[in-house]
Amino acid sequence: MTVEAKYLSRDAFAERIAKFPAVILPLGATEQHGYHLPLGVDIILAEALATRIAEATGATVMPAMPFGYSWVWRDAPGSVTVEARTLEDVICQTAESLARHGVRHVFLVNGHEANSATMKYAARRLWDHPDIKVWRLFYPNLTAVMAEHCESPNWHGIVHACEFETSLMLAVAPNLVDMEKAVREYPDRDRGYFQGGRPMGELSRSGVFGDATLATAAKGEAMLEIFTQSMADAVREVCAGK
Amino acid sequence: MTVEAKYLSRDAFAERIAKFPAVILPLGATEQHGYHLPLGVDIILAEALATRIAEATGATVMPAMPFGYSWVWRDAPGSVTVEARTLEDVICQTAESLARHGVRHVFLVNGHEANSATMKYAARRLWDHPDIKVWRLFYPNLTAVMAEHCESPNWHGIVHACEFETSLMLAVAPNLVDMEKAVREYPDRDRGYFQGGRPMGELSRSGVFGDATLATAAKGEAMLEIFTQSMADAVREVCAGK
Amino acid sequence: MTVEAKYLSRDAFAERIAKFPAVILPLGATEQHGYHLPLGVDIILAEALATRIAEATGATVMPAMPFGYSWVWRDAPGSVTVEARTLEDVICQTAESLARHGVRHVFLVNGHEANSATMKYAARRLWDHPDIKVWRLFYPNLTAVMAEHCESPNWHGIVHACEFETSLMLAVAPNLVDMEKAVREYPDRDRGYFQGGRPMGELSRSGVFGDATLATAAKGEAMLEIFTQSMADAVREVCAGK
Amino acid sequence: MTVEAKYLSRDAFAERIAKFPAVILPLGATEQHGYHLPLGVDIILAEALATRIAEATGATVMPAMPFGYSWVWRDAPGSVTVEARTLEDVICQTAESLARHGVRHVFLVNGHEANSATMKYAARRLWDHPDIKVWRLFYPNLTAVMAEHCESPNWHGIVHACEFETSLMLAVAPNLVDMEKAVREYPDRDRGYFQGGRPMGELSRSGVFGDATLATAAKGEAMLEIFTQSMADAVREVCAGK
Amino acid sequence: MTVEAKYLSRDAFAERIAKFPAVILPLGATEQHGYHLPLGVDIILAEALATRIAEATGATVMPAMPFGYSWVWRDAPGSVTVEARTLEDVICQTAESLARHGVRHVFLVNGHEANSATMKYAARRLWDHPDIKVWRLFYPNLTAVMAEHCESPNWHGIVHACEFETSLMLAVAPNLVDMEKAVREYPDRDRGYFQGGRPMGELSRSGVFGDATLATAAKGEAMLEIFTQSMADAVREVCAGK
Amino acid sequence: MTVEAKYLSRDAFAERIAKFPAVILPLGATEQHGYHLPLGVDIILAEALATRIAEATGATVMPAMPFGYSWVWRDAPGSVTVEARTLEDVICQTAESLARHGVRHVFLVNGHEANSATMKYAARRLWDHPDIKVWRLFYPNLTAVMAEHCESPNWHGIVHACEFETSLMLAVAPNLVDMEKAVREYPDRDRGYFQGGRPMGELSRSGVFGDATLATAAKGEAMLEIFTQSMADAVREVCAGK
Repeated sequence: MTVEAKYLSRDAFAERIAKFPAVILPLGATEQHGYHLPLGVDIILAEALATRIAEATGATVMPAMPFGYSWVWRDAPGSVTVEARTLEDVICQTAESLARHGVRHVFLVNGHEANSATMKYAARRLWDHPDIKVWRLFYPNLTAVMAEHCESPNWHGIVHACEFETSLMLAVAPNLVDMEKAVREYPDRDRGYFQGGRPMGELSRSGVFGDATLATAAKGEAMLEIFTQSMADAVREVCAGK
Repeated sequence: MTVEAKYLSRDAFAERIAKFPAVILPLGATEQHGYHLPLGVDIILAEALATRIAEATGATVMPAMPFGYSWVWRDAPGSVTVEARTLEDVICQTAESLARHGVRHVFLVNGHEANSATMKYAARRLWDHPDIKVWRLFYPNLTAVMAEHCESPNWHGIVHACEFETSLMLAVAPNLVDMEKAVREYPDRDRGYFQGGRPMGELSRSGVFGDATLATAAKGEAMLEIFTQSMADAVREVCAGK
Repeated sequence: MTVEAKYLSRDAFAERIAKFPAVILPLGATEQHGYHLPLGVDIILAEALATRIAEATGATVMPAMPFGYSWVWRDAPGSVTVEARTLEDVICQTAESLARHGVRHVFLVNGHEANSATMKYAARRLWDHPDIKVWRLFYPNLTAVMAEHCESPNWHGIVHACEFETSLMLAVAPNLVDMEKAVREYPDRDRGYFQGGRPMGELSRSGVFGDATLATAAKGEAMLEIFTQSMADAVREVCAGK
Repeated sequence: MTVEAKYLSRDAFAERIAKFPAVILPLGATEQHGYHLPLGVDIILAEALATRIAEATGATVMPAMPFGYSWVWRDAPGSVTVEARTLEDVICQTAESLARHGVRHVFLVNGHEANSATMKYAARRLWDHPDIKVWRLFYPNLTAVMAEHCESPNWHGIVHACEFETSLMLAVAPNLVDMEKAVREYPDRDRGYFQGGRPMGELSRSGVFGDATLATAAKGEAMLEIFTQSMADAVREVCAGK
Repeated sequence: MTVEAKYLSRDAFAERIAKFPAVILPLGATEQHGYHLPLGVDIILAEALATRIAEATGATVMPAMPFGYSWVWRDAPGSVTVEARTLEDVICQTAESLARHGVRHVFLVNGHEANSATMKYAARRLWDHPDIKVWRLFYPNLTAVMAEHCESPNWHGIVHACEFETSLMLAVAPNLVDMEKAVREYPDRDRGYFQGGRPMGELSRSGVFGDATLATAAKGEAMLEIFTQSMADAVREVCAGK
Repeated sequence: MTVEAKYLSRDAFAERIAKFPAVILPLGATEQHGYHLPLGVDIILAEALATRIAEATGATVMPAMPFGYSWVWRDAPGSVTVEARTLEDVICQTAESLARHGVRHVFLVNGHEANSATMKYAARRLWDHPDIKVWRLFYPNLTAVMAEHCESPNWHGIVHACEFETSLMLAVAPNLVDMEKAVREYPDRDRGYFQGGRPMGELSRSGVFGDATLATAAKGEAMLEIFTQSMADAVREVCAGK
C-alpha cells in the first residue's frame, strides 16, 4: 500500500495515523543545480528519503512543499524563492491542520540547507502546542557521512550540485542526471556571500560548488541507506516517547 | 521531453522559456474527497490538466503547490488548510521569482474552487508588475460543461467528490478511485454554511456532495478534453497578446 | 424609537441587546456607479435594508463601514478601495468588541459583491469564538429574484449600476437617481477581467454593466420586500437557534 | 448641491475635485458617551464640522469611518474599537485611492482624541507620496476655546461627554441629547489609566468626565463657529500652497 | 551591588526579583539634539533616572532599548527611527519574556516623548496578561516642574535640546555637553508639522527648540530629584498594589 | 575622541561619517550565562569588539541592540527574547535610517550565534538598497581560533558560557566574572534540542555548555586580538570596495 497521503482516502489516512501517529512533510526547493541536474533535486531527494523512512516506520508522507527559501539563486533560471516567514507559515499551518486528526508528530525531511533556520523557528513556535510537535531532519551527521563516502571536499561546508548531491541523485533518479555535463568548480571564497548579502549566483559559473564528476550511484545509495536508517530511528524513537 | 520544471536543468528551463515565456502553476488542495477518492484529487487533476495544456502549448509546468485554503474540511482526516493570505503570498512570491528569468505569464491551473478569491487577489496584486502577469484558470464554463456531460445535478453550485470530479479522476488515475465506495449524498441546504462560517465537514457524512456513483471515465475524458482545449486557447491567446 | 446604534445611548443600546442580542453591520463600497447613480449606492442600499430588517426583527443597526474592496474601480473618480485583509480586520474587530456587550450575532448586510470572500473569511475566523457569530447576507436568491423582476439580463452574473441596482435606488432614494443619464451598456466579455487581474474600469465606458434604463421604483420596491423578508427570516431563525 | 461624495455621481465628484482638489474624511468613534448622549457623538460632530468646512471651502466630504481606537471603553455597551494599525491602514488606503483621481489633500476631521497618534502616523507615512498629503484637524486651540466658552474645567485635559461635547451636540443635534440624564462626574485621578493600561470604563460610573449639566446650545454653536473658521482657514491655506 | 541586569548573573537577577518583582526598561531615542548635545541624550537621561529609581526602590534595570520612534529627525545625521509598531513589539516581547521569571511589573522610563503612544498601546496590549503589567513613566508633571525650574518657555509643549533637557544633561553627564555651542531657537509655529506630516528637521536650523543657553546643572539636578522621587513613588505604590 | 555615536553630536557624527562612511551595530542578547557570568555577556563582548574595531578603522559605533533571539533560554531568569522577525525589522530600519546620512555600510558585530539567520536575512533584504549594505561579523574562523587557544572542546559546535566566552569576558570585564562559580558541564546530546524545538534550558543545569573553569584572561585577550584584526580587515576592505 502507498505511504503517500496524496493517494490515500481520508479513511485510509485515518487508519494509518491511528496505527502510527506521525507524518513526514518533505521540504526542499525548486532551484538551479548546475548543468547536469534538474531544478527539483532538493525535492526529489527529500521525497525519496521520505518514502524510504515511511516504509521503514509506518509514517505517512504528505505532499512536498516544493518551494523553499532560495534567495541566493534568484537570478538563475527556474529558481523560485519564497520568503522565510511564508515558508514558516506553511509549515506551521500544515502541522496545525494535522493536529486535529490525531497526528502527533510532523517530521520535516529537508533537502535544502537554507530552509534550516525556518524549520527551527517552526518547531519552536509549535513546541507548546498541546497535540503536535514538529521535528527537523536534514542529512544527519552530514560531515561524517561525506567524509567516509565522498572523495572531493565540500565547498566551505556547503553541499550544492556537488559529488554528494549528484551521487544521491544517481541512486534515486539516474535518468535525471546528465553526467556528461557534470563539472568541478570551487569558486573563490567570497566575503560578499559569507559576510554580506551577495547571492550565490554571482559566485559560481556552473552553479556547482564542488566536484560533481566524482559522483556515483553506489556512493549515493550507500549514503541514502545511512540517512534512511538514522532518520527512521529518529522517527521511531520520537514516536516511542524516547 | 518533459514539460515539468522539476525535471529540467536550469538551461533546459531557460530554453523553453525563451521559446514560450509562460509557466503553469498547478493549485489545489490536500483534503478529504469521500470514501472513494484520495486526498490529492484537486492536485492530481490540476497536474493532469497542466501537463496536457503544456504539451499543447509549449508552456512549462512548475511543481504544484499542494496545500490550499481548505478551512471547511478542517476536521476531516488528512485535510490541510493554509490561510488565504499565506497562499496568496506563495503565489505572488513564485511569480516574482520567475519574472527575473524571462517568464512573462504565470497560469494558475486550479483544482479547488475555494482558492479562487486568493487567485484573484494575487492576479490583481501583480497586475502592475512590469514583467509578469498572473492568470486564473478553473474549469472554464463549468456549468455548461457539466450540464452536457453529467447526469446528476451538482449541490448548490459546488463540485466536490461528485459525478464530475470522480469522472475526471477515472479518466486521469483510475487506479486511485474505488468505485465500490462511491456514494450519492445531497445534504440539506445549510444556513450555517451558506450564510455563516460552518465547516462543510458538518454537513455531509460521506464527504460527497452529489452523486459519485454515476461517474465514468468516458465522461471524465470528454470533459478533460474540453477543458484542455479551452485553457490551451487561453494560454496561447494571452501569450500572443490577444 | 430608532434602530440605529449611532443614535442610542449606551443604556438604550444595552436594553435593545438584552431583548434581542443581534446587530446588523452594513457593508458596501464608495465607488462609481455610472452617470446616473451616486458613489454611495452600495452603502445606501445596505443601510436601507438594514433598517427594514432591524424594524422587522428587533436587531440593532451599527454604523456602516463605508469603504469596501473596490480594486476594480481604482481609476474611477471617487472610488475608494481598502485591502481585503483590512476590511476583514475591521469586521472581526467590530464583532469582537460587541461580543463583550452581550451581542451574540453580527449580521453583515452587504451591498457590494466584491466583499463576499472577505465576509466569508471573517465569519470563519470567528466561528469558534465562544460568544459571537458572524453571518453573511447579500441579496438572497439573487438570480431568481432578478429573473422574476428584471427585464434585462445581467452581465455575466454581475450586478453593477444596472436595472437591478437602479431599481432598488429608485425605491430607496429616488432623489439620488438621475434617470436621464441612465444608459445601457453590455461590454464584451473580457479575458483580462475574468481570468487575469484587469480592473473593471477598463471594460465599461459608462460604468454600467447592463441596462439601467429599464429600472423602475416599483421593481425596486418589490425586490426590496422580498430581500427584507428573507433576511429578516434569517435573522430571526439564527437568533432562535434554528 | 450636496458636498457629500456619497450622494455625488462619479462625474459630479470629478468636477468638484477639478475645482478644489481636497476631501475631508471624518473620523471619530462609536463609543459610550454617558447616559445623556448617543454612541455616535464623535462621528456626528465630525460630520457636522466636515459639512460646514466643505460648504465654506469647496472641499468634498467622504463618508465617515465610524469606528476608531476606543480600547478604553471596551466594556461599555455599544463601544467598538479597531486596532490603531487597522485604522491607520484604512486612512492610508483611502488616501491612496483618492490620489489616483486628482485629490491632492485629505483632511482628517476628527471627533475622538484617541485617534490622534494614528492620524499622525498616517500623515507621515504618506508625506513622501508624490500626489497626496494627509492633514490632521482636531478641535484647534481646544484649551483656549474651552477656557473662553465653558464654565467647568475638563478632567486632566480630556474631553468626553462633558460640558464641551454636550454643548456641541446641543448645537448640532439637540434631539439626540437628553439633558435630564446629564450628570457631573470628576473621577479621581487614576494611576492605572494615566501610567498603565487600565480602561477608562473602570474610572467613571456615568461615562462622563466633567460636568455635562452646564452644557448649552449657545456655547456649542459659538465654539463650532470658531472651529469651523479655523479649520476652513487651514483647508484654504493648505490648498493655496501656503 | 549593581542594579543593572546586564551585570547580574541569572541567580543574582532571580534573587533581586524575588525580593522586588519589578524591572525598569529605559526607552529613548538615538537622534540629533542640536550642536551642543550628543545623539544619546534621551537614552542617557532615561538610564540615569532608571538607575536612581532602582536604587531607591529595589527594582532592577534592564538594558535600554536605544532606538525609538524618531521619524521627525530622519534627515538629521545619526538619527535612527524604528517604526512605532516595531518598538511596540520589542516592548511587549521583552515584558512577555520577563513574565516567565517572576517579574510582575515592567516600568518603561522614557526620555523621548514621541514614544508615548507606543508605550500606551503596549501597556494596553498586555493589560490582561495573567502575570505582568507594563507601566509608563515620562517626566511626571512635566509642565509644572518646568514652570518652577526653567526660565525659558518651551516651544508649543515640546521639550527638545532646550533649557530643560540641557539642564538634565548638565546634571547627569556634564562632559557630554558643550555649552559653548548651545543656542536659542524658537522656530515659527508650522502647520505642516502640527497638522500634517512634515518632519521636525525642516523647522529648526540648530535642532534646538527653546533656549539651551539658560541651562544649568543645578536646575537639572533639582528636576531630576523631583522626577526620581515621583517615579520611585509610582514604582513602590504599584508594587504595593495601591 | 569617542567612537560611540551615543556620545557624539550630530555634527561630530556627520564629520566621522564623511571621513569613513561605516557604522558598527553591536548585536547580542540579554540571557543567562551560567552561575559565573552576567546576563549581558553577548552584548558586552560585542561592544568591546566594536570599540576596538572602530578605533582601528575609523568606523563609528551605534548603541547596541541589547535583545536578541533567545527563545531557548526563555525559562532562565533575566533572559529576554524578541522574535526573529522583530530583530530583523530593528536591524533593517536602523540601516535605512542611517542610509539617509551618508552611511554606506552597517557592520553587525554579533556576540550571540542565534542571531545569525536574522542577520543574513537582513543583509539580503537590503542588498539591493541603492545606498547602504549590511555586513555580518560573528567571531570569524571561530573553530580554528578555538582549536588553537582553548583547551576544552566545545559542545556540538555551540559556544555558551564556556571556556571561550569566559576567557573573552576575563579579558574584557574581569570584575564581572566570578570564577569561583565557574563549572564544567557537558550535557548529553539531546534529540529534542537538535531535531525538535526543545529549549536549551532543559538540557544544562548550570547553563554552561563546556568547561568554563579553564578560562583565562590571556586566552581571551589573544583571541580578541585575532578577531579584532580579522574584523577590522573586513571593515577596511569592504569600505575600500574590495
